[in-house]
Amino acid sequence: MKIGILGAGQLGRMLALAGYPLDFDFVFLDPAAEACAAPLGDHLHADYTDEAVLAQFCDACELATYEFENVPAKVAEFVAARVPMYPPPKALGAGQDRLGEKRMFDALKIPVPRYMPVAAREALDLAVRNIGLPCVLKTRRMGYDGKGQAVLRTEADLDAAWEKLAGQPLICEAFVPFERELSCLAVRGRDGTMVFYPVVENVHHDGILRVSTPRQDDPLQAEAETHTRRVAEHLDYVGVLAFEFFVADGKLYGNEIAPRVHNSGHWTIEGAEISQFENHLRAIAGLPLGSTALRGPSLMFNFIGDAPPTTALAAIPGVHVHLYGKAPKPQRKVGHATITAASEAELLERRALLEALIPPSSS
Amino acid sequence: MKIGILGAGQLGRMLALAGYPLDFDFVFLDPAAEACAAPLGDHLHADYTDEAVLAQFCDACELATYEFENVPAKVAEFVAARVPMYPPPKALGAGQDRLGEKRMFDALKIPVPRYMPVAAREALDLAVRNIGLPCVLKTRRMGYDGKGQAVLRTEADLDAAWEKLAGQPLICEAFVPFERELSCLAVRGRDGTMVFYPVVENVHHDGILRVSTPRQDDPLQAEAETHTRRVAEHLDYVGVLAFEFFVADGKLYGNEIAPRVHNSGHWTIEGAEISQFENHLRAIAGLPLGSTALRGPSLMFNFIGDAPPTTALAAIPGVHVHLYGKAPKPQRKVGHATITAASEAELLERRALLEALIPPSSS
Repeated sequence: MKIGILGAGQLGRMLALAGYPLDFDFVFLDPAAEACAAPLGDHLHADYTDEAVLAQFCDACELATYEFENVPAKVAEFVAARVPMYPPPKALGAGQDRLGEKRMFDALKIPVPRYMPVAAREALDLAVRNIGLPCVLKTRRMGYDGKGQAVLRTEADLDAAWEKLAGQPLICEAFVPFERELSCLAVRGRDGTMVFYPVVENVHHDGILRVSTPRQDDPLQAEAETHTRRVAEHLDYVGVLAFEFFVADGKLYGNEIAPRVHNSGHWTIEGAEISQFENHLRAIAGLPLGSTALRGPSLMFNFIGDAPPTTALAAIPGVHVHLYGKAPKPQRKVGHATITAASEAELLERRALLEALIPPSSS
Repeated sequence: MKIGILGAGQLGRMLALAGYPLDFDFVFLDPAAEACAAPLGDHLHADYTDEAVLAQFCDACELATYEFENVPAKVAEFVAARVPMYPPPKALGAGQDRLGEKRMFDALKIPVPRYMPVAAREALDLAVRNIGLPCVLKTRRMGYDGKGQAVLRTEADLDAAWEKLAGQPLICEAFVPFERELSCLAVRGRDGTMVFYPVVENVHHDGILRVSTPRQDDPLQAEAETHTRRVAEHLDYVGVLAFEFFVADGKLYGNEIAPRVHNSGHWTIEGAEISQFENHLRAIAGLPLGSTALRGPSLMFNFIGDAPPTTALAAIPGVHVHLYGKAPKPQRKVGHATITAASEAELLERRALLEALIPPSSS
C-alpha cells in the first residue's frame, strides 16, 4: 500500500523507515527541493496549495497523513475528500490556533494557564492586568520551537513585544513557573482503541527541545492519559497525538497538542517495544496497535544546528545515531541520538559522554 | 556519503533502512526490475557484467559493498579497482567455490566433514568409497537454500544424483549427523577490530532457513569465534562475515561462509544493541563498531512462500514484522518476524502464536 505524506522532513523520513518493513511505500508532497525524506519515496515537489499536484498526490496514494501541522486547512480538506486521511482535518485545525486550542482544553475540563486573545494594543494592556506579570504574548498561528513568542516580565516589555508580534492574531497567556514539562504520546486506532507511551520529561534550550526522557510509573501518567484521551476522542483522532503539559504544584496544565508524531517520541525507536512511527502507521492503516512498553532506560538528545562527528557518536556505547540528511544551520534540528542503557546510572554516564561532544555554545 | 551495493534484494533493503539514520545514501545495481531495495535508493537496472553501467555505479558511489555472494569475480575486481570495496573481492571468491572453501578451512585448521572433489562418474564412486554413506553431492558453485545438492543414502542413489548434477564442478561431502546447526556472525572493522554476536542456532526446513535463535553463553561461543576470526583475518575481511557450522559430538565442523550480512542475523535488528546491518555499514565506512550484546530473549522466524496477514502478525505482542515487498512464490523468502520477550518462556509462547498463523504445508 502506498501512503501519501504531506511534508517530507525528518518526521516523514522516520515514518518511511518504519513503514517499509510493513510493506508500505511512500509518496511525499513538500515544497522544499532538499526535503530530507525525498530519497525514501516519490517526492512531489510543489507548494501545498498547488491543486494539480495535490490531485496527483491523491491519485498516487491509498491513504494519506501529514507530518507537518501547518498544512493549510483547505489542503487537508481537498485531500480528505479524495482519499482516507488520518488524523482527520479537524485535528489539524484544532492545533493550528492557540486560542481555539485553549478553548477546547477549557471545554474538555483540562486545566490551562489563564489566557486572553489580544487583537489590539489596548487589549494587551487589559490582558496583562487580568493575567498578571510575568506572562507570554504569542502568535495564535504558525508558532513552533519558541518562535512567535515574547515573555513579558515588566510593563516596560509590552511595547517591544507589541512591536515584534503585532499585525497577526495574538494570545496572552500566564507564564507558568513550571517544575517540569511533560508530554504524553497517545496512539488511537481507527476503532477507537488507545495506547499511551510512558510520559516524557522534556528539557528545552532556547525554546527548542533538547532532551526527552521517558518516565516509567510517573505519578502524573494517569492524569496525562485522561487529558489526552479526552482530546483524542473529541477530535475523532486516528494516529499518534502528542500533548505537551506544564507541571506546576504537581498538577498538569495543558500547553499544546501536535496532531502527528512528535520529537519527544523519537526515543521510542529503540526505547519502546514499537516506535511512535510504526504505531502511527499501524493506526492509520487499521492494523492492531503495538506495545508502548519501555524496553529499558533510555533518553533522546537532539542535535541542533549541527551534529558531532558520527565517529565520535558511534564510539559511545548505547548511542543510536539518527541523522536527518540536513545541512547544518543555526537552530535547525539536524538529528538526534537515542541513548539506551541497562540502568539509570549507566544512562547518565552515557549522556555525559555524549554531552561532552556538544560545543558549549549550543549545549 | 553514497554507498553502492551490488544486489538490491532484501539484504540491500535492510542495509539501506539501517544506513539512512547514519546519513548514508544508496545506489544499487541489480538485474531484476522488481528488486525490492530499489525504492530505497537509486537503482541501476542492468546485468552485473554490463561494464558501462558498472562504471556508472562506481562513479555514483564513494564506497561499495555487495549483498549477493555470487557476484562474478571480475565484476568485483572491476569495482574494487575504481572505488573502495568491502568485503574485499578475495572474500567473495573464497565463498563461491565449496571446494576452495573447504580447503581454506583445512589450511586454517578448522575441522570440516570429509570431502572430495568429483569431476567424473568414476570419481563419484571413489569419493563414496572413501567418505562412506550417507554423504552429500553438491555443486561447487551457485548453491544456496539447499539448491544444487543431492543426499546419497545408498549406492542406488548415485546414478540419479549424478544425472541431476553432472556437467558442473561437484564436491562430495560426508553427511554430518548434526545435533545442531550454528552460525557465528562476526564484524571486522577496517582497522582489524572484531566483534561477535552471540552464536545463533538455526533450523532449516526443506533446505531453507526457518528459525534462528541467538544463544547467550553457548558453550561453543569461544570455539566459533576462534574459527571465524581465523577466516576473517586470513581474508583481510571488512564487514559482517557469517560462518555456518554443524555441531556433532559437541564439536564444530565448518560448513560454509557467507561474505555478507546473513539471514541468521536478522534478529539483531530488534534483538541486539546494534544490528548486523548497521554494523556492516559502520565497518565498511570506517566507523567504530557497535555493541553486539543481546537486548533480551529473541528469535527470528522466516516467512517462506508467503507471509501471514500483517493484521494477524501485528496482534501478537513482541512480534516485529519485516516484509520485503516481494510477490509470494513457493520457496521464496518474502519476509521475517523477530520475536522479542521478557523471558524464554514468553518467547516460546509468542512463537507458538506466530506458528499458528503458518499454513501446515509450509510450516
